[in-house]
Amino acid sequence: MRVSEINVALIGTAFMGRAHGNAWRQVAAFCRPKRTPRLKVICGRDPGRTKAAARAFGWEEAATDWREVVRRPDIGIVDVCTPGDSHAEIAIAAARAGKAVLCEKPLANTVREAERMLAAAERAGVAHMVCHNFRRIPAVCLARQIIDEGRLGEIRHFRGAYLEDWLLNPAFPLVWRLDRKRAGSGSLGDIGSHVIDLARMLAGEIREVSGLTETFIRTRPLPGSPARKGRVTVDDAAVALVRFASGAVGSIEATRFAPGRKSQCSFEINGSRGSLAFDLERLNELQVYFESDPPALRGFRTILATEPIHPHMAPWWPPGHIIGWEHSFTHMVLDLLAAVADGTVPSPSFHDGVMNQRVLDAIGRSSASRRWARVKGVA
Amino acid sequence: MRVSEINVALIGTAFMGRAHGNAWRQVAAFCRPKRTPRLKVICGRDPGRTKAAARAFGWEEAATDWREVVRRPDIGIVDVCTPGDSHAEIAIAAARAGKAVLCEKPLANTVREAERMLAAAERAGVAHMVCHNFRRIPAVCLARQIIDEGRLGEIRHFRGAYLEDWLLNPAFPLVWRLDRKRAGSGSLGDIGSHVIDLARMLAGEIREVSGLTETFIRTRPLPGSPARKGRVTVDDAAVALVRFASGAVGSIEATRFAPGRKSQCSFEINGSRGSLAFDLERLNELQVYFESDPPALRGFRTILATEPIHPHMAPWWPPGHIIGWEHSFTHMVLDLLAAVADGTVPSPSFHDGVMNQRVLDAIGRSSASRRWARVKGVA
Amino acid sequence: MRVSEINVALIGTAFMGRAHGNAWRQVAAFCRPKRTPRLKVICGRDPGRTKAAARAFGWEEAATDWREVVRRPDIGIVDVCTPGDSHAEIAIAAARAGKAVLCEKPLANTVREAERMLAAAERAGVAHMVCHNFRRIPAVCLARQIIDEGRLGEIRHFRGAYLEDWLLNPAFPLVWRLDRKRAGSGSLGDIGSHVIDLARMLAGEIREVSGLTETFIRTRPLPGSPARKGRVTVDDAAVALVRFASGAVGSIEATRFAPGRKSQCSFEINGSRGSLAFDLERLNELQVYFESDPPALRGFRTILATEPIHPHMAPWWPPGHIIGWEHSFTHMVLDLLAAVADGTVPSPSFHDGVMNQRVLDAIGRSSASRRWARVKGVA
Amino acid sequence: MRVSEINVALIGTAFMGRAHGNAWRQVAAFCRPKRTPRLKVICGRDPGRTKAAARAFGWEEAATDWREVVRRPDIGIVDVCTPGDSHAEIAIAAARAGKAVLCEKPLANTVREAERMLAAAERAGVAHMVCHNFRRIPAVCLARQIIDEGRLGEIRHFRGAYLEDWLLNPAFPLVWRLDRKRAGSGSLGDIGSHVIDLARMLAGEIREVSGLTETFIRTRPLPGSPARKGRVTVDDAAVALVRFASGAVGSIEATRFAPGRKSQCSFEINGSRGSLAFDLERLNELQVYFESDPPALRGFRTILATEPIHPHMAPWWPPGHIIGWEHSFTHMVLDLLAAVADGTVPSPSFHDGVMNQRVLDAIGRSSASRRWARVKGVA
Repeated sequence: MRVSEINVALIGTAFMGRAHGNAWRQVAAFCRPKRTPRLKVICGRDPGRTKAAARAFGWEEAATDWREVVRRPDIGIVDVCTPGDSHAEIAIAAARAGKAVLCEKPLANTVREAERMLAAAERAGVAHMVCHNFRRIPAVCLARQIIDEGRLGEIRHFRGAYLEDWLLNPAFPLVWRLDRKRAGSGSLGDIGSHVIDLARMLAGEIREVSGLTETFIRTRPLPGSPARKGRVTVDDAAVALVRFASGAVGSIEATRFAPGRKSQCSFEINGSRGSLAFDLERLNELQVYFESDPPALRGFRTILATEPIHPHMAPWWPPGHIIGWEHSFTHMVLDLLAAVADGTVPSPSFHDGVMNQRVLDAIGRSSASRRWARVKGVA
Repeated sequence: MRVSEINVALIGTAFMGRAHGNAWRQVAAFCRPKRTPRLKVICGRDPGRTKAAARAFGWEEAATDWREVVRRPDIGIVDVCTPGDSHAEIAIAAARAGKAVLCEKPLANTVREAERMLAAAERAGVAHMVCHNFRRIPAVCLARQIIDEGRLGEIRHFRGAYLEDWLLNPAFPLVWRLDRKRAGSGSLGDIGSHVIDLARMLAGEIREVSGLTETFIRTRPLPGSPARKGRVTVDDAAVALVRFASGAVGSIEATRFAPGRKSQCSFEINGSRGSLAFDLERLNELQVYFESDPPALRGFRTILATEPIHPHMAPWWPPGHIIGWEHSFTHMVLDLLAAVADGTVPSPSFHDGVMNQRVLDAIGRSSASRRWARVKGVA
Repeated sequence: MRVSEINVALIGTAFMGRAHGNAWRQVAAFCRPKRTPRLKVICGRDPGRTKAAARAFGWEEAATDWREVVRRPDIGIVDVCTPGDSHAEIAIAAARAGKAVLCEKPLANTVREAERMLAAAERAGVAHMVCHNFRRIPAVCLARQIIDEGRLGEIRHFRGAYLEDWLLNPAFPLVWRLDRKRAGSGSLGDIGSHVIDLARMLAGEIREVSGLTETFIRTRPLPGSPARKGRVTVDDAAVALVRFASGAVGSIEATRFAPGRKSQCSFEINGSRGSLAFDLERLNELQVYFESDPPALRGFRTILATEPIHPHMAPWWPPGHIIGWEHSFTHMVLDLLAAVADGTVPSPSFHDGVMNQRVLDAIGRSSASRRWARVKGVA
Repeated sequence: MRVSEINVALIGTAFMGRAHGNAWRQVAAFCRPKRTPRLKVICGRDPGRTKAAARAFGWEEAATDWREVVRRPDIGIVDVCTPGDSHAEIAIAAARAGKAVLCEKPLANTVREAERMLAAAERAGVAHMVCHNFRRIPAVCLARQIIDEGRLGEIRHFRGAYLEDWLLNPAFPLVWRLDRKRAGSGSLGDIGSHVIDLARMLAGEIREVSGLTETFIRTRPLPGSPARKGRVTVDDAAVALVRFASGAVGSIEATRFAPGRKSQCSFEINGSRGSLAFDLERLNELQVYFESDPPALRGFRTILATEPIHPHMAPWWPPGHIIGWEHSFTHMVLDLLAAVADGTVPSPSFHDGVMNQRVLDAIGRSSASRRWARVKGVA
């Protein structure tokens, strides 16, 4: 192992395991990471599936016991891609073992768990990052840059929604994502947490919320035995009004019941000097509007964020040759590797994961109490 | 006067007076109204301005005393285009005088006033219509038709917003629309009422709301003496969660602080079988998505609602030759004339105006109490 | 008749007769024309239809003999809205009688006729205008303004097409527009002439062309007796390469066989410093791209040309309240009235009509010879 | 080496070398190729660069002499990613050595060379494929499927253009792509060939063309010594009318001088029953319009071709998670591997490369002769 290399252990082989596996592999092929990741070991419960995943992405070893894996002295980074109910246990063990930890979002199923994860990581002094990958989409990075440069002025409105339609069919089975014990919440935590993260990244902390959650289809066929039905214990949809610490107002929505919206995470931000808008289904584009343009020539412009000068784009293809959703993970691990090399705290960190969880929690509480709820820790 | 003719009196000469004047004149040129409107008298406080307006649109007479006008025996329809604080008095007087009444939206500045207007009109047995003109945009009519045909299935989500940006500049003066006494409310009543009307038309009654209002710029130069400033007493923006009687959930927003959005009244509706979306800035278009399309060929389609078979389009131009915002008023008066001829209640009626006002009121109350508020009269 | 008034005679009552009638009536209601048009007489072959048209739009008289009408001493402007084969005769008679002449496009069915019309108008010293109404769409005016200000730099590419689909159905009858004797040509003259006019207006004279015309459906049912078929003697579609006098290159297309394109007249222009694009089905919008924007913030912006500062928009509605296709005619007659008042030559004049006809002619010749053809009079 | 594996040799390390290298590596990670490619050797002139490329993508060996490489008995597939002037020599040598050959587009710099390449490959009985990767974009595959199913009916129009803007700046140096000897032609062969390939794939063979080429900037700084200038010997832009063997008509354009168009390869096809449209900058989307939809509900629909049922999408991500430009190469090599395993001729083959070259050649000849030119071999 060359000195600049660092061994990675990936826990989880499903959807996110593939997305992360691809990122770890692609990062050194296209970018110039400060540490070169070595795909040392992938860990999953099913030995056959884990071996196949290892072979596909080039993991050197396949393992089934995450406890052993996170303890291995040769491992530098542990990447947690399991369902939400095991995040805390794995991430805390990894941090205690002195590993840098990357953890899928939402960070945990409860605020309490998330706080414990953050505390453990801070106590251990390891790098910790929650995988809100949309932060590394070039057009989203550009949005942040535009805001940081003051081009929108003071932000007044945030309008964000994540719309999907994969639960429309009542015959769709009761998978783990519909079970509160495994998933924590439904659309709210799964996709609403993405919108919350973008809101926090671009408009600052959320101080209070008024939320509403709904479950449209309350029972579904059991995965194994479709003749029997079980209860859906999470929300199908969630909508919330939000008030930011800055005074800005907004709304956040998540639903799996919007026919035709496949993975449409979109937001619009209005400031005193301009606006911007984004849609994940066209993730290479950013819409911007500037009051500073000549009055007769103002209009929303569509920036195709594929130029070498756009954030994260230089290593890829010539202008106009778009990248896909998966590239955002490659940019995540690139920046995590830099933080590990530099000894800095990556962004978004477990702190962001905790704050996100607190907003989710406030929406849940508000939905139950039918009143506005404060987000813990935001003045 | 031919037997099929009916004399119209228009009260108000400003923005809405022009829009209505144009409609009364165009309706017989392009459509075949059941009664032919005769532009008998226009009434305004400023004699010179009123005369000019009369000349421009062909009103036979110009008057300055609305009390006299609404009493005239030759008048069949009174069209109220004044600021909101005079709607009730004029409309009630007109109804009592036995005139059909068309009134600009929002119907009144308070629920109480609106209810009195409805009661007066019903007691008098006259036709009454509130001018929510967006209901007569062909693409919006088509949306209603699609819903009525069951093509969306059961409606679950409504997402509506009216975004404008004309108050961005802090130097913009304190016009009457920013004075609660004259205007009743700010963006909420002025443009939010349009979204509420569309929500009610397309998704049914709203049962309860959780609202939030905000005034971003609290003092502005006085119109006459810009060196002095006065207090803005209405909302600059309003956002609300809504729960429909049907169980559907939604959000409604109105703001005058969204740079680049000039008059963007947009909505999206998601049902169990499909979705549709609309944007006033492209009012000839309707986006629709149907689950019933072949799986590989599903997608939001953009219907250019300019075919003769589309609602209200036959009298106009060949397909693809778009119409403007003003045409919706022509369609309004066309249908009012039919209701007058047939002795039926037009839609939207003062009842719709009352229900709209009750939703506005609930949003205002909720915003103050920081809790959900019920809409009066919806079970 | 007040001194500022001028009497208008409209020849033709069909589609264009309605569009022009509306314009003559609306111009004084909304704009401030330098001369106030009085809708004196409308003239058509069918007395009943003509009387109905007179009533609808407020023409004072209905007539059936255009020869008498154009001679009347009280008439100041003759507006020719008949099929192409009668343009020359009527317009020349009107010019000789000293009337200002507005003539529908294409100016004539042949270059020869068009040249005679121009000569007659110039000899008579009357105002003459060909009704290429797209020149008066605010977004198109804005395009011209942007080019005139040098914001696109040197123009290199023009890409224009007018796509419709109304002839798709083989059962559609053999109407006059499909008869070379009446219509001169098919899609080429009817809609291709619009594209040519826009090309000339925005990119200058066309020097030579290579054209191709095609008739996809060669026989169609006769209008009166659908059991019998007659020959289509015009083109269904035409495509041409063009070379401008400036050296710019381009393409021009017209077809009535593009399913889903209802009246899509679109163009894109690329210069050394920027680009712009337009689509008639969204005629309130103009797309522009400027190389002078900061590199990371470049993108096509969509200008919603509905601000009071946009050409021709001040008299209409507030920003974002879109206008329709018909408004372009109102702007045409507004400018014709100004030219008549000022004694200037309107634009586009019969000279533009002649040059347009020469391009149409060159495309026809090139299509027959299968070689490039020069446009008469362009060096 | 496992029996199902096959060794690949990649010749070329630049832009296309990276795109192909990525594809060879990703194909086995995500898809299930019939033969598993082993990244055996990459070959480039610069040893250092070649070694770096080998390391980045995992090529087992780095070589500098392509002649040796293509002869190696362990190599099963030779992938040619060099500039056009060396395609013929390398591909022919590889074919003669019995290797399957994948060659970048355009297949060669002349028709003669391309024909020799095809003949060599056929004589050798090896699999041969030209890398027109756009054929493997899921939305483009879907377009083909829709046409094959007869949903567009008889095709009448093809309108294709590839617009870029990277040569706008006169200070951009005289790179090899601007040298006829190296590149064969300019925008025509480089990007126009993509449009021609799509035209042939979707609308059939092109029988004749009328072309026009232009060089806007005729001298440019020499790459090494910017103070000196050299002549640009290729076209900056090319436009052509095309007539298909089927009778359909069309236009094809390529330019590197369209500000704001970064890599916009777009086409629209109109048939007797419907239309479809595509734009590479939004390559996950396909626009379709069907005459068979109910009349009031017709409109262009935007299919987001990211469903598992869409061609090539199943191995990737959930619906709505878009893929990038690079994925089309992965799909290319996947299908080449299947053809090699099955002993079939891949599509597009060198035959397609030859036909493409013949169209390019006809456009060049027509541009010189200023007449229509026939495409060799198309009746």
